[in-house]
Amino acid sequence: MTGTATIPDLATLDELRELGQQLRVDSIRASTSAGSGHPTSSMSAADLLAVLTGRHLRYDWDRPAEPANDHLIFSKGHASPLLYSVYKAVGVVSDEELMTGYRRFGSRLEGHPTPVLPWVDVATGSLGQGLPYGVGVALAGRYLDKLPYRVWVLCGDSELAEGSIWEAFDKAAYYHLSNLIAMIDVNRLGQRGPTELSWDLAAYTRRMEGFGARVLQVDGHDVAAIDAAMADAGSLNGEQPVVILARTEKGRGFSEVQDKENWHGKPLPAEMADRAILELGGLRNLRVRGPVPAPSGRPDRPQPGNATVRMPSYEVGAKIATRKAYGDALAAIGARQNVVAMDGEVSNSTFAAEFAETHPARYFEMFIAEQQLVAAAVGMSVRGYVPFASTFAAFLTRAYDFIRMAAISMADISLVGSHAGVEIGADGPSQMGLEDLAMFRAVHGSTVLYPSDATSAAALVAAMADRPGVKYMRTTRGAYPVLYSASEQFPIGGCKVLKEAANDQVALIGAGITLHNCLAAAQLLSDEGITARVIDLYSIKPIDAATVAEAALDTGRLVLAEDHHPEGGLGEAVLSVLAERGLGGTAVAHLAVTEMPGSGTPAELLSSAGLSAADIAAAARTLISA
Amino acid sequence: MTGTATIPDLATLDELRELGQQLRVDSIRASTSAGSGHPTSSMSAADLLAVLTGRHLRYDWDRPAEPANDHLIFSKGHASPLLYSVYKAVGVVSDEELMTGYRRFGSRLEGHPTPVLPWVDVATGSLGQGLPYGVGVALAGRYLDKLPYRVWVLCGDSELAEGSIWEAFDKAAYYHLSNLIAMIDVNRLGQRGPTELSWDLAAYTRRMEGFGARVLQVDGHDVAAIDAAMADAGSLNGEQPVVILARTEKGRGFSEVQDKENWHGKPLPAEMADRAILELGGLRNLRVRGPVPAPSGRPDRPQPGNATVRMPSYEVGAKIATRKAYGDALAAIGARQNVVAMDGEVSNSTFAAEFAETHPARYFEMFIAEQQLVAAAVGMSVRGYVPFASTFAAFLTRAYDFIRMAAISMADISLVGSHAGVEIGADGPSQMGLEDLAMFRAVHGSTVLYPSDATSAAALVAAMADRPGVKYMRTTRGAYPVLYSASEQFPIGGCKVLKEAANDQVALIGAGITLHNCLAAAQLLSDEGITARVIDLYSIKPIDAATVAEAALDTGRLVLAEDHHPEGGLGEAVLSVLAERGLGGTAVAHLAVTEMPGSGTPAELLSSAGLSAADIAAAARTLISA
Repeated sequence: MTGTATIPDLATLDELRELGQQLRVDSIRASTSAGSGHPTSSMSAADLLAVLTGRHLRYDWDRPAEPANDHLIFSKGHASPLLYSVYKAVGVVSDEELMTGYRRFGSRLEGHPTPVLPWVDVATGSLGQGLPYGVGVALAGRYLDKLPYRVWVLCGDSELAEGSIWEAFDKAAYYHLSNLIAMIDVNRLGQRGPTELSWDLAAYTRRMEGFGARVLQVDGHDVAAIDAAMADAGSLNGEQPVVILARTEKGRGFSEVQDKENWHGKPLPAEMADRAILELGGLRNLRVRGPVPAPSGRPDRPQPGNATVRMPSYEVGAKIATRKAYGDALAAIGARQNVVAMDGEVSNSTFAAEFAETHPARYFEMFIAEQQLVAAAVGMSVRGYVPFASTFAAFLTRAYDFIRMAAISMADISLVGSHAGVEIGADGPSQMGLEDLAMFRAVHGSTVLYPSDATSAAALVAAMADRPGVKYMRTTRGAYPVLYSASEQFPIGGCKVLKEAANDQVALIGAGITLHNCLAAAQLLSDEGITARVIDLYSIKPIDAATVAEAALDTGRLVLAEDHHPEGGLGEAVLSVLAERGLGGTAVAHLAVTEMPGSGTPAELLSSAGLSAADIAAAARTLISA
Repeated sequence: MTGTATIPDLATLDELRELGQQLRVDSIRASTSAGSGHPTSSMSAADLLAVLTGRHLRYDWDRPAEPANDHLIFSKGHASPLLYSVYKAVGVVSDEELMTGYRRFGSRLEGHPTPVLPWVDVATGSLGQGLPYGVGVALAGRYLDKLPYRVWVLCGDSELAEGSIWEAFDKAAYYHLSNLIAMIDVNRLGQRGPTELSWDLAAYTRRMEGFGARVLQVDGHDVAAIDAAMADAGSLNGEQPVVILARTEKGRGFSEVQDKENWHGKPLPAEMADRAILELGGLRNLRVRGPVPAPSGRPDRPQPGNATVRMPSYEVGAKIATRKAYGDALAAIGARQNVVAMDGEVSNSTFAAEFAETHPARYFEMFIAEQQLVAAAVGMSVRGYVPFASTFAAFLTRAYDFIRMAAISMADISLVGSHAGVEIGADGPSQMGLEDLAMFRAVHGSTVLYPSDATSAAALVAAMADRPGVKYMRTTRGAYPVLYSASEQFPIGGCKVLKEAANDQVALIGAGITLHNCLAAAQLLSDEGITARVIDLYSIKPIDAATVAEAALDTGRLVLAEDHHPEGGLGEAVLSVLAERGLGGTAVAHLAVTEMPGSGTPAELLSSAGLSAADIAAAARTLISA
């Protein structure tokens, strides 16, 4: 891989010094005009961005989707005035938009960057996330795209306190991501005072070198030094991620705030802004464009190719765990060359190992680092890949902030959590996903799936691949009978009515393990002459409101059973349907895990939680006799 | 602080070698008898635990609540067979209980340790958490208790991939926690194969020393070397946390599995277990007790003292943000000497800064590390303190795994999330807590509070301090009118009916910002001759089901308004009440944030989300005209 950029007449160092001042002035103007924002956090990094934009970032501003483009991620998303001032300097955002749009309602220049802007890869603003996303993009660059683009990530010093930053360094070194360059703006001051390590660049260097990075210390206001460091960092030489560790001053360039406390996140009052602009040499309208990469000649997004996908099929009645079906189906859709997978060191439990075996070049072991696991998926989605990331459902809670932010990033990622609920048995509550449905339902635009058998699980894996947004599938540890033949369809937003009659007296609604217990309960009830409808609610969000409503209308009684805490899961999803449809008069029994479980067999724990077939049947009887 | 332990006749090194073998044998026996568990992960650390238990851990096994006791935390919670075998060796668990209880239903010897056992401080099993909890306990030891106990944490090598481990090292060094000793069992093998760094102890050392720890490398099967390292590590000398970095072998002592892959998390089959026990020298029943600390003479839990708490009071109608009231009230209850507080580098936004100013000795700045923030609170609760931890509501999502585990730990912690919802305005969606109610409601035994004014916010802070479990309060950025006089009571599980009449046609239920808009909507409706009840649902969980039910019965129509995504929050909490009470026939309009917000003013964003007073009034009209 060599540098293949078209080099126009690059800006001189003197011009870059001027550009740095312009970025400061515009950061001040934008935030003062908006009445909020972070000018001082922008000013510290202005010289870094001036040099990067003017001489090193290989980017075709007119074709942001060009696969050969470098990537620029603002991990310190609050420095959005700086980013948007860069956009002005390269001519993709007008001064008027900057001054009237920043942080305004309906504007694309939001308080923190989001991909409503075509040049923004990922939403940032929750600190410590940009670098892990950068790892994902850099993994794609080195191992999938095999293109010589670089991923430049601007980090603050405060956010180095986030563990996720160190998950990122660890994986960047493990995967030899010399295409990842972390530019650390060490301005010494956090929101409420000095950072832990202040300007102790030696301490930062020890940590980063300890984690396997190559560290270049620079004076972050010396454009010549920055230029040299960026030339070195961007060389793609070596096998290590690179850090440009820049000693900077917050509010640099305006003596009234420079390196002073109590100026975080505060726009300058108008009069003060005037003085600042004067001190910074006044308004400028420099236009600069840096190098442009040679076009890759590739489509914007990696293509699936034309290999035939041979989905697994299962014999009805055979006992197969849905987690096994996940692995089977993932390996199958891996015939599509744009599908990638990763796992948090439990691939032999989640069955992601099947993909790792069949498509090793597109499998990434992320070890026990769930934040980086999800961030890697987001980063690969930036480059148009179709990522699946898996671990235990319980441990996806570790990445909730990343999952929430993935929705803001408009990332298309599939997450799969195994070992859901008390059904797992002896391992105990730390390993039981009991909050995952609530967690994922509350994410904007999410899809939440919970198949009950191998056939539906496999079909839904394929459906997830083609659906936008944050998608979640919950799988079950134990092996239960296959319910459906391979010819059945499982549209997202649908459900399956497994048993129904005109005179149904009650409907039993479950998913996963509880669906099997609903079926057994229906049999118990049938033996007593009670006819029960049974609904497999494999799509929790979106939910098949019409079928649920029909069951409520037909029977007047619903038993909702879920191996999850009562809040925010299947049960409340159904209650919301009833409320929306004006069917709240339906009698409802909601069975869920209300006590803290311990260890035991799956049957013992399900029974103890009131989720056995007998419990479901009893709830139905109670509704009917009420 | 000096070592003040009573030293009985300590075990000799030969005896400790024997004890190590016994711990291996018992780990094998327990897991084989249970049919599941992690014997090989126990065997690698058996010599470490033998030496610790026999000669270094200062612990009165008959008085686990003694404040002077050392603490032992199994961060690698899956090595529970080893921990329980230690309990057998010191005589607090019988061999019979070990053999018939481990991982069985109803037993206290769960698959991963939980505090149902009196010697267990915190639940573990989600990796990477034990060390951050240890930081919390060690902070209490050094800065609050000022007792010379040590906190010994057994970590696995795989879990060093978790960023939370590095948050812990960072804070341990920052706070000079020489009373924290991480024992790293570097057995080279994770669940599915080798770890990232294998036995590269030099690489681990660079990382840990880079983070400020003092690292002692040992052969983890050389009891003399371990003994020397523990004597050094436990000296409380210096100002650095200590790491005992032990090179070990997984499955050590049984040649068929020792240092072999594919033996993670698998009990030995019975016949193989017999061979292992033979190779390990057979069954033993050594009884060992190590040193006992001199009694502290203190009560088990730190006492509040008798200083008068002077709660803040607010004038009705004055505009005060609930986050400000949080700071005021927290500073006030800080008169109780057992109240401690910490924040994630946003104390000037959450107003935890008020506590930091008035009670600096009991305030801990955790910088931007939300996992460690919550873990520190859990650790301090272990020592009986009453911790409050705060950051933005959005960023508590970063710690969801720790919050979920805190419930399993039966920790009593108060968490406070500011800047809830779209109400925050210009900063945009990354900073908006829009999933927090769902996230916290789904936690077992949790309390979820969402006050609308300063008076209720302050009162609820005091109530949180006295309530067990995981408690969450959501606060609002903006300043809104005080609604209640200081004499009002706000019991957890209650609500406030702010406006009611016998002929109410609809009830408007909100909390936080939406309650203010409900009040304004009621005025709009009143102007049209429509009488609306208004309910301040400040306690989302537990919920005042009786008052909600009464409103449903009286009016037949509810408008539920929440500045949160529609799933899992206030709205679904009310729907669950209606379903439980058989009041589902109530007509319900549920207003929540259904589209991705951007930047804007609070009023613009609330209106855009359909949560303005006009929107609430319109929803009421629609219900009435239906």
